[in-house]
Amino acid sequence: MPYVNIKITREGATSEQKAALIKGVTDLLVDVLGKNPATTVVVIDEVEMEHWGIGGLPVEEYRKKAAAKPA
Amino acid sequence: MPYVNIKITREGATSEQKAALIKGVTDLLVDVLGKNPATTVVVIDEVEMEHWGIGGLPVEEYRKKAAAKPA
Amino acid sequence: MPYVNIKITREGATSEQKAALIKGVTDLLVDVLGKNPATTVVVIDEVEMEHWGIGGLPVEEYRKKAAAKPA
Amino acid sequence: MPYVNIKITREGATSEQKAALIKGVTDLLVDVLGKNPATTVVVIDEVEMEHWGIGGLPVEEYRKKAAAKPA
Amino acid sequence: MPYVNIKITREGATSEQKAALIKGVTDLLVDVLGKNPATTVVVIDEVEMEHWGIGGLPVEEYRKKAAAKPA
Amino acid sequence: MPYVNIKITREGATSEQKAALIKGVTDLLVDVLGKNPATTVVVIDEVEMEHWGIGGLPVEEYRKKAAAKPA
Repeated sequence: MPYVNIKITREGATSEQKAALIKGVTDLLVDVLGKNPATTVVVIDEVEMEHWGIGGLPVEEYRKKAAAKPA
Repeated sequence: MPYVNIKITREGATSEQKAALIKGVTDLLVDVLGKNPATTVVVIDEVEMEHWGIGGLPVEEYRKKAAAKPA
Repeated sequence: MPYVNIKITREGATSEQKAALIKGVTDLLVDVLGKNPATTVVVIDEVEMEHWGIGGLPVEEYRKKAAAKPA
Repeated sequence: MPYVNIKITREGATSEQKAALIKGVTDLLVDVLGKNPATTVVVIDEVEMEHWGIGGLPVEEYRKKAAAKPA
Repeated sequence: MPYVNIKITREGATSEQKAALIKGVTDLLVDVLGKNPATTVVVIDEVEMEHWGIGGLPVEEYRKKAAAKPA
Repeated sequence: MPYVNIKITREGATSEQKAALIKGVTDLLVDVLGKNPATTVVVIDEVEMEHWGIGGLPVEEYRKKAAAKPA
Protein backbone atom coordinates (compact mmCIF):
# COMPACT_ATOMS: atom_id res chain seq x y z
CA MET A 1 0.00 0.00 0.00
CA PRO A 2 3.00 2.33 -0.18
CA TYR A 3 3.32 5.62 -1.99
CA VAL A 4 6.65 6.60 -3.51
CA ASN A 5 7.55 9.96 -5.01
CA ILE A 6 10.74 10.20 -7.08
CA LYS A 7 11.97 13.66 -8.00
CA ILE A 8 14.66 13.97 -10.67
CA THR A 9 15.93 16.85 -12.77
CA ARG A 10 14.46 17.02 -16.29
CA GLU A 11 17.39 15.86 -18.41
CA GLY A 12 15.94 13.50 -20.98
CA ALA A 13 14.98 10.38 -19.02
CA THR A 14 13.21 8.08 -21.48
CA SER A 15 9.84 6.36 -21.06
CA GLU A 16 11.74 3.08 -20.70
CA GLN A 17 13.87 4.49 -17.89
CA LYS A 18 10.79 5.82 -16.11
CA ALA A 19 9.07 2.44 -16.46
CA ALA A 20 12.23 0.83 -15.03
CA LEU A 21 12.09 3.16 -12.01
CA ILE A 22 8.41 2.30 -11.44
CA LYS A 23 9.08 -1.42 -11.71
CA GLY A 24 12.28 -1.30 -9.65
CA VAL A 25 10.89 0.59 -6.70
CA THR A 26 7.69 -1.49 -6.64
CA ASP A 27 9.73 -4.71 -6.67
CA LEU A 28 11.87 -3.31 -3.85
CA LEU A 29 8.83 -2.74 -1.64
CA VAL A 30 7.53 -6.22 -2.40
CA ASP A 31 10.92 -7.83 -1.69
CA VAL A 32 11.88 -5.88 1.44
CA LEU A 33 8.50 -5.38 3.11
CA GLY A 34 6.14 -7.82 1.39
CA LYS A 35 3.94 -4.94 0.18
CA ASN A 36 1.12 -5.54 -2.30
CA PRO A 37 2.15 -4.18 -5.72
CA ALA A 38 -1.50 -3.73 -6.75
CA THR A 39 -1.85 -0.79 -4.35
CA THR A 40 1.71 0.54 -4.59
CA VAL A 41 1.65 3.97 -6.21
CA VAL A 42 4.75 5.59 -7.71
CA VAL A 43 4.80 9.19 -8.89
CA ILE A 44 7.78 10.62 -10.77
CA ASP A 45 8.35 14.38 -10.90
CA GLU A 46 10.72 15.79 -13.47
CA VAL A 47 11.94 19.10 -12.12
CA GLU A 48 13.29 21.87 -14.36
CA MET A 49 17.04 22.37 -13.87
CA GLU A 50 16.56 25.95 -12.68
CA HIS A 51 14.08 24.72 -10.06
CA TRP A 52 16.57 22.38 -8.41
CA GLY A 53 19.08 23.77 -5.96
CA ILE A 54 22.06 22.15 -4.29
CA GLY A 55 24.88 23.83 -2.40
CA GLY A 56 22.87 27.06 -2.52
CA LEU A 57 22.96 27.19 -6.34
CA PRO A 58 20.73 26.12 -9.22
CA VAL A 59 22.04 22.69 -10.22
CA GLU A 60 23.58 23.76 -13.54
CA GLU A 61 25.67 26.48 -11.90
CA TYR A 62 26.60 24.03 -9.16
CA ARG A 63 27.89 21.51 -11.69
CA LYS A 64 29.87 24.14 -13.60
CA LYS A 65 31.49 25.29 -10.38
CA ALA A 66 32.24 21.71 -9.32
CA ALA A 67 33.75 20.93 -12.75
CA ALA A 68 35.94 24.04 -12.56
CA LYS A 69 37.45 23.07 -9.20
CA PRO A 70 41.19 22.31 -9.35
CA ALA A 71 41.92 18.67 -8.57
CA MET B 1 -5.11 26.25 8.28
CA PRO B 2 -4.78 22.94 6.45
CA TYR B 3 -2.80 22.18 3.33
CA VAL B 4 -4.11 19.63 0.85
CA ASN B 5 -2.27 18.23 -2.16
CA ILE B 6 -4.29 16.30 -4.73
CA LYS B 7 -2.36 14.36 -7.36
CA ILE B 8 -4.25 13.05 -10.39
CA THR B 9 -3.15 11.77 -13.78
CA ARG B 10 -3.33 14.32 -16.59
CA GLU B 11 -6.37 13.15 -18.53
CA GLY B 12 -8.32 16.25 -19.39
CA ALA B 13 -9.81 17.43 -16.11
CA THR B 14 -11.52 20.74 -16.81
CA SER B 15 -11.13 24.02 -14.94
CA GLU B 16 -14.64 23.50 -13.58
CA GLN B 17 -13.71 20.08 -12.23
CA LYS B 18 -10.57 21.45 -10.61
CA ALA B 19 -12.56 24.28 -9.03
CA ALA B 20 -15.03 21.66 -7.76
CA LEU B 21 -12.15 19.71 -6.15
CA ILE B 22 -10.85 22.88 -4.47
CA LYS B 23 -14.30 23.80 -3.18
CA GLY B 24 -15.17 20.25 -2.14
CA VAL B 25 -12.07 19.54 -0.13
CA THR B 26 -12.16 22.97 1.54
CA ASP B 27 -15.80 22.45 2.53
CA LEU B 28 -14.88 19.02 3.87
CA LEU B 29 -12.24 20.48 6.18
CA VAL B 30 -14.67 23.15 7.37
CA ASP B 31 -17.44 20.62 7.98
CA VAL B 32 -15.41 17.84 9.63
CA LEU B 33 -12.83 19.83 11.56
CA GLY B 34 -14.14 23.38 11.66
CA LYS B 35 -11.07 24.66 9.81
CA ASN B 36 -10.90 28.24 8.53
CA PRO B 37 -11.31 28.25 4.74
CA ALA B 38 -9.43 31.56 4.44
CA THR B 39 -6.15 29.83 5.27
CA THR B 40 -6.91 26.45 3.70
CA VAL B 41 -4.57 25.88 0.77
CA VAL B 42 -5.25 23.28 -1.93
CA VAL B 43 -2.67 22.39 -4.58
CA ILE B 44 -3.57 20.10 -7.49
CA ASP B 45 -0.83 18.30 -9.41
CA GLU B 46 -1.63 16.81 -12.79
CA VAL B 47 0.86 14.02 -13.36
CA GLU B 48 1.78 12.75 -16.85
CA MET B 49 0.48 9.23 -17.46
CA GLU B 50 3.98 7.84 -17.94
CA HIS B 51 5.01 9.33 -14.57
CA TRP B 52 2.34 7.45 -12.64
CA GLY B 53 2.95 3.86 -11.65
CA ILE B 54 0.63 1.27 -10.13
CA GLY B 55 1.15 -2.47 -9.84
CA GLY B 56 4.75 -1.94 -10.98
CA LEU B 57 3.66 -0.52 -14.36
CA PRO B 58 3.05 2.90 -15.89
CA VAL B 59 -0.68 3.45 -15.51
CA GLU B 60 -1.57 3.09 -19.19
CA GLU B 61 0.09 -0.32 -19.44
CA TYR B 62 -1.55 -1.28 -16.16
CA ARG B 63 -4.99 -0.43 -17.51
CA LYS B 64 -4.41 -2.31 -20.77
CA LYS B 65 -3.34 -5.37 -18.84
CA ALA B 66 -6.30 -5.11 -16.49
CA ALA B 67 -8.72 -4.71 -19.44
CA ALA B 68 -7.22 -7.79 -21.14
CA LYS B 69 -7.77 -10.06 -18.14
CA PRO B 70 -10.30 -12.83 -18.74
CA ALA B 71 -13.38 -12.47 -16.58
CA MET C 1 -5.88 6.34 -9.02
CA PRO C 2 -5.38 9.65 -7.19
CA TYR C 3 -3.19 10.38 -4.22
CA VAL C 4 -4.27 12.96 -1.67
CA ASN C 5 -2.20 14.31 1.20
CA ILE C 6 -3.99 16.29 3.91
CA LYS C 7 -1.86 18.19 6.40
CA ILE C 8 -3.51 19.52 9.55
CA THR C 9 -2.16 20.79 12.84
CA ARG C 10 -2.20 18.23 15.67
CA GLU C 11 -5.07 19.46 17.83
CA GLY C 12 -7.04 16.41 18.79
CA ALA C 13 -8.76 15.26 15.61
CA THR C 14 -10.52 11.98 16.46
CA SER C 15 -10.31 8.69 14.55
CA GLU C 16 -13.89 9.30 13.43
CA GLN C 17 -12.99 12.72 12.03
CA LYS C 18 -9.99 11.26 10.21
CA ALA C 19 -12.14 8.48 8.76
CA ALA C 20 -14.62 11.16 7.64
CA LEU C 21 -11.83 13.04 5.85
CA ILE C 22 -10.71 9.85 4.09
CA LYS C 23 -14.27 9.01 3.04
CA GLY C 24 -15.13 12.58 2.05
CA VAL C 25 -12.14 13.22 -0.16
CA THR C 26 -12.41 9.79 -1.82
CA ASP C 27 -16.11 10.39 -2.57
CA LEU C 28 -15.20 13.82 -3.98
CA LEU C 29 -12.75 12.29 -6.46
CA VAL C 30 -15.31 9.68 -7.48
CA ASP C 31 -18.08 12.27 -7.90
CA VAL C 32 -16.10 15.00 -9.68
CA LEU C 33 -13.69 12.95 -11.79
CA GLY C 34 -15.08 9.41 -11.80
CA LYS C 35 -11.92 8.06 -10.15
CA ASN C 36 -11.74 4.50 -8.89
CA PRO C 37 -11.89 4.50 -5.06
CA ALA C 38 -10.08 1.13 -4.89
CA THR C 39 -6.82 2.80 -5.94
CA THR C 40 -7.40 6.20 -4.32
CA VAL C 41 -4.86 6.73 -1.56
CA VAL C 42 -5.29 9.34 1.18
CA VAL C 43 -2.54 10.17 3.65
CA ILE C 44 -3.18 12.47 6.61
CA ASP C 45 -0.28 14.21 8.35
CA GLU C 46 -0.81 15.71 11.76
CA VAL C 47 1.76 18.44 12.18
CA GLU C 48 2.96 19.68 15.57
CA MET C 49 1.77 23.22 16.28
CA GLU C 50 5.32 24.53 16.52
CA HIS C 51 6.08 23.03 13.10
CA TRP C 52 3.35 24.98 11.34
CA GLY C 53 3.97 28.55 10.31
CA ILE C 54 1.61 31.17 8.95
CA GLY C 55 2.20 34.89 8.61
CA GLY C 56 5.86 34.28 9.50
CA LEU C 57 4.98 32.90 12.95
CA PRO C 58 4.37 29.50 14.52
CA VAL C 59 0.62 29.03 14.40
CA GLU C 60 -0.02 29.42 18.15
CA GLU C 61 1.73 32.79 18.27
CA TYR C 62 -0.09 33.78 15.11
CA ARG C 63 -3.46 33.00 16.69
CA LYS C 64 -2.61 34.87 19.91
CA LYS C 65 -1.60 37.91 17.91
CA ALA C 66 -4.73 37.69 15.74
CA ALA C 67 -6.95 37.36 18.85
CA ALA C 68 -5.28 40.39 20.44
CA LYS C 69 -5.99 42.67 17.48
CA PRO C 70 -8.49 45.45 18.19
CA ALA C 71 -11.66 45.08 16.17
CA MET D 1 20.80 14.45 -7.29
CA PRO D 2 17.39 12.83 -6.91
CA TYR D 3 15.05 13.04 -3.95
CA VAL D 4 12.87 10.06 -3.09
CA ASN D 5 10.09 9.95 -0.52
CA ILE D 6 8.73 6.56 0.52
CA LYS D 7 5.53 6.48 2.56
CA ILE D 8 4.56 3.23 4.26
CA THR D 9 2.11 2.38 7.02
CA ARG D 10 3.67 2.02 10.49
CA GLU D 11 3.58 -1.74 10.99
CA GLY D 12 6.92 -2.65 12.49
CA ALA D 13 9.42 -2.20 9.65
CA THR D 14 12.88 -2.80 11.17
CA SER D 15 15.95 -0.57 10.90
CA GLU D 16 17.47 -3.21 8.61
CA GLN D 17 14.46 -3.09 6.30
CA LYS D 18 14.57 0.69 6.19
CA ALA D 19 18.29 0.62 5.39
CA ALA D 20 17.52 -1.89 2.62
CA LEU D 21 14.93 0.50 1.15
CA ILE D 22 17.44 3.38 1.24
CA LYS D 23 20.15 1.26 -0.40
CA GLY D 24 17.78 -0.31 -2.93
CA VAL D 25 16.24 2.87 -4.21
CA THR D 26 19.61 4.66 -4.37
CA ASP D 27 21.11 1.75 -6.36
CA LEU D 28 18.09 1.87 -8.68
CA LEU D 29 18.69 5.53 -9.49
CA VAL D 30 22.38 4.87 -10.10
CA ASP D 31 21.65 1.85 -12.31
CA VAL D 32 18.76 3.26 -14.35
CA LEU D 33 19.74 6.93 -14.65
CA GLY D 34 23.40 7.09 -13.68
CA LYS D 35 22.60 9.41 -10.77
CA ASN D 36 25.26 10.30 -8.19
CA PRO D 37 24.50 8.46 -4.92
CA ALA D 38 26.38 11.09 -2.90
CA THR D 39 23.59 13.61 -3.50
CA THR D 40 20.67 11.17 -3.62
CA VAL D 41 18.38 11.81 -0.67
CA VAL D 42 15.81 9.28 0.53
CA VAL D 43 13.20 10.11 3.17
CA ILE D 44 10.95 7.41 4.63
CA ASP D 45 7.66 8.36 6.30
CA GLU D 46 5.94 5.83 8.50
CA VAL D 47 2.28 6.75 8.52
CA GLU D 48 -0.09 5.73 11.33
CA MET D 49 -2.62 3.14 10.18
CA GLU D 50 -5.54 5.46 10.93
CA HIS D 51 -3.93 8.16 8.79
CA TRP D 52 -3.81 5.99 5.67
CA GLY D 53 -6.91 5.64 3.54
CA ILE D 54 -7.63 3.38 0.60
CA GLY D 55 -10.99 2.63 -1.00
CA GLY D 56 -12.48 5.43 1.10
CA LEU D 57 -11.64 3.69 4.39
CA PRO D 58 -8.82 3.75 6.95
CA VAL D 59 -6.52 0.92 5.90
CA GLU D 60 -7.34 -1.43 8.80
CA GLU D 61 -11.07 -1.30 8.07
CA TYR D 62 -10.32 -1.74 4.39
CA ARG D 63 -8.33 -4.90 5.08
CA LYS D 64 -11.01 -6.35 7.35
CA LYS D 65 -13.63 -5.75 4.71
CA ALA D 66 -11.42 -7.26 1.98
CA ALA D 67 -10.72 -10.32 4.16
CA ALA D 68 -14.43 -10.80 4.80
CA LYS D 69 -15.33 -10.87 1.10
CA PRO D 70 -16.64 -14.21 -0.16
CA ALA D 71 -14.27 -15.80 -2.72
CA MET E 1 21.25 17.54 4.80
CA PRO E 2 17.85 19.23 4.62
CA TYR E 3 15.31 19.09 1.84
CA VAL E 4 13.16 22.13 1.11
CA ASN E 5 10.21 22.30 -1.26
CA ILE E 6 8.86 25.72 -2.20
CA LYS E 7 5.54 25.87 -4.02
CA ILE E 8 4.52 29.15 -5.66
CA THR E 9 1.92 30.06 -8.25
CA ARG E 10 3.26 30.38 -11.80
CA GLU E 11 3.24 34.13 -12.31
CA GLY E 12 6.48 34.97 -14.03
CA ALA E 13 9.16 34.48 -11.38
CA THR E 14 12.52 34.98 -13.13
CA SER E 15 15.55 32.70 -13.07
CA GLU E 16 17.29 35.29 -10.88
CA GLN E 17 14.44 35.24 -8.38
CA LYS E 18 14.45 31.45 -8.27
CA ALA E 19 18.22 31.43 -7.74
CA ALA E 20 17.70 33.96 -4.92
CA LEU E 21 15.16 31.63 -3.27
CA ILE E 22 17.59 28.70 -3.52
CA LYS E 23 20.44 30.74 -2.07
CA GLY E 24 18.31 32.38 0.62
CA VAL E 25 16.77 29.22 2.01
CA THR E 26 20.09 27.36 1.93
CA ASP E 27 21.79 30.21 3.81
CA LEU E 28 18.94 30.19 6.33
CA LEU E 29 19.49 26.50 7.11
CA VAL E 30 23.23 27.07 7.46
CA ASP E 31 22.74 30.10 9.72
CA VAL E 32 19.96 28.76 11.95
CA LEU E 33 20.85 25.07 12.19
CA GLY E 34 24.45 24.82 10.96
CA LYS E 35 23.39 22.51 8.12
CA ASN E 36 25.84 21.55 5.38
CA PRO E 37 24.92 23.41 2.16
CA ALA E 38 26.60 20.73 0.01
CA THR E 39 23.79 18.30 0.79
CA THR E 40 20.95 20.81 1.12
CA VAL E 41 18.45 20.23 -1.67
CA VAL E 42 15.86 22.83 -2.69
CA VAL E 43 13.07 22.07 -5.14
CA ILE E 44 10.79 24.82 -6.45
CA ASP E 45 7.38 23.95 -7.90
CA GLU E 46 5.57 26.51 -9.99
CA VAL E 47 1.89 25.69 -9.77
CA GLU E 48 -0.63 26.77 -12.42
CA MET E 49 -3.03 29.40 -11.10
CA GLU E 50 -6.06 27.17 -11.65
CA HIS E 51 -4.36 24.42 -9.61
CA TRP E 52 -3.98 26.58 -6.51
CA GLY E 53 -6.92 27.00 -4.18
CA ILE E 54 -7.41 29.28 -1.20
CA GLY E 55 -10.62 30.09 0.62
CA GLY E 56 -12.32 27.33 -1.37
CA LEU E 57 -11.66 29.07 -4.71
CA PRO E 58 -9.03 28.95 -7.45
CA VAL E 59 -6.60 31.72 -6.57
CA GLU E 60 -7.55 34.08 -9.41
CA GLU E 61 -11.21 34.05 -8.44
CA TYR E 62 -10.21 34.46 -4.82
CA ARG E 63 -8.20 37.58 -5.65
CA LYS E 64 -10.99 39.09 -7.74
CA LYS E 65 -13.44 38.52 -4.92
CA ALA E 66 -11.03 39.98 -2.37
CA ALA E 67 -10.39 43.04 -4.58
CA ALA E 68 -14.13 43.60 -4.98
CA LYS E 69 -14.79 43.69 -1.22
CA PRO E 70 -15.90 47.08 0.08
CA ALA E 71 -13.34 48.58 2.46
CA MET F 1 0.31 32.45 -1.13
CA PRO F 2 3.29 30.07 -1.13
CA TYR F 3 3.66 26.78 0.66
CA VAL F 4 7.05 25.72 1.96
CA ASN F 5 7.97 22.34 3.39
CA ILE F 6 11.29 22.03 5.23
CA LYS F 7 12.49 18.54 6.08
CA ILE F 8 15.35 18.16 8.58
CA THR F 9 16.69 15.25 10.58
CA ARG F 10 15.46 15.11 14.18
CA GLU F 11 18.54 16.20 16.11
CA GLY F 12 17.32 18.58 18.74
CA ALA F 13 16.31 21.73 16.86
CA THR F 14 14.76 24.07 19.44
CA SER F 15 11.42 25.88 19.22
CA GLU F 16 13.37 29.11 18.76
CA GLN F 17 15.28 27.66 15.81
CA LYS F 18 12.07 26.40 14.23
CA ALA F 19 10.44 29.81 14.68
CA ALA F 20 13.53 31.36 13.05
CA LEU F 21 13.13 29.03 10.05
CA ILE F 22 9.45 29.97 9.71
CA LYS F 23 10.22 33.69 9.95
CA GLY F 24 13.27 33.50 7.69
CA VAL F 25 11.65 31.62 4.84
CA THR F 26 8.50 33.78 4.99
CA ASP F 27 10.61 36.96 4.87
CA LEU F 28 12.53 35.51 1.93
CA LEU F 29 9.33 35.00 -0.08
CA VAL F 30 8.17 38.52 0.76
CA ASP F 31 11.54 40.05 -0.18
CA VAL F 32 12.24 38.09 -3.37
CA LEU F 33 8.75 37.66 -4.80
CA GLY F 34 6.57 40.13 -2.93
CA LYS F 35 4.38 37.33 -1.57
CA ASN F 36 1.76 38.00 1.08
CA PRO F 37 2.98 36.60 4.44
CA ALA F 38 -0.62 36.24 5.70
CA THR F 39 -1.19 33.31 3.34
CA THR F 40 2.34 31.91 3.34
CA VAL F 41 2.31 28.48 4.98
CA VAL F 42 5.46 26.79 6.28
CA VAL F 43 5.50 23.18 7.45
CA ILE F 44 8.58 21.68 9.13
CA ASP F 45 9.05 17.92 9.21
CA GLU F 46 11.56 16.43 11.63
CA VAL F 47 12.60 13.10 10.19
CA GLU F 48 14.03 10.29 12.33
CA MET F 49 17.73 9.68 11.60
CA GLU F 50 17.08 6.12 10.45
CA HIS F 51 14.46 7.41 8.01
CA TRP F 52 16.90 9.71 6.20
CA GLY F 53 19.19 8.26 3.57
CA ILE F 54 22.10 9.81 1.72
CA GLY F 55 24.74 8.07 -0.38
CA GLY F 56 22.68 4.87 -0.11
CA LEU F 57 23.01 4.75 3.68
CA PRO F 58 21.01 5.88 6.71
CA VAL F 59 22.47 9.26 7.62
CA GLU F 60 24.21 8.14 10.83
CA GLU F 61 26.11 5.38 9.07
CA TYR F 62 26.91 7.81 6.27
CA ARG F 63 28.42 10.28 8.72
CA LYS F 64 30.48 7.60 10.48
CA LYS F 65 31.84 6.44 7.16
CA ALA F 66 32.61 9.99 6.07
CA ALA F 67 34.35 10.72 9.38
CA ALA F 68 36.47 7.56 9.04
CA LYS F 69 37.78 8.50 5.58
CA PRO F 70 41.52 9.16 5.44
CA ALA F 71 42.28 12.78 4.55
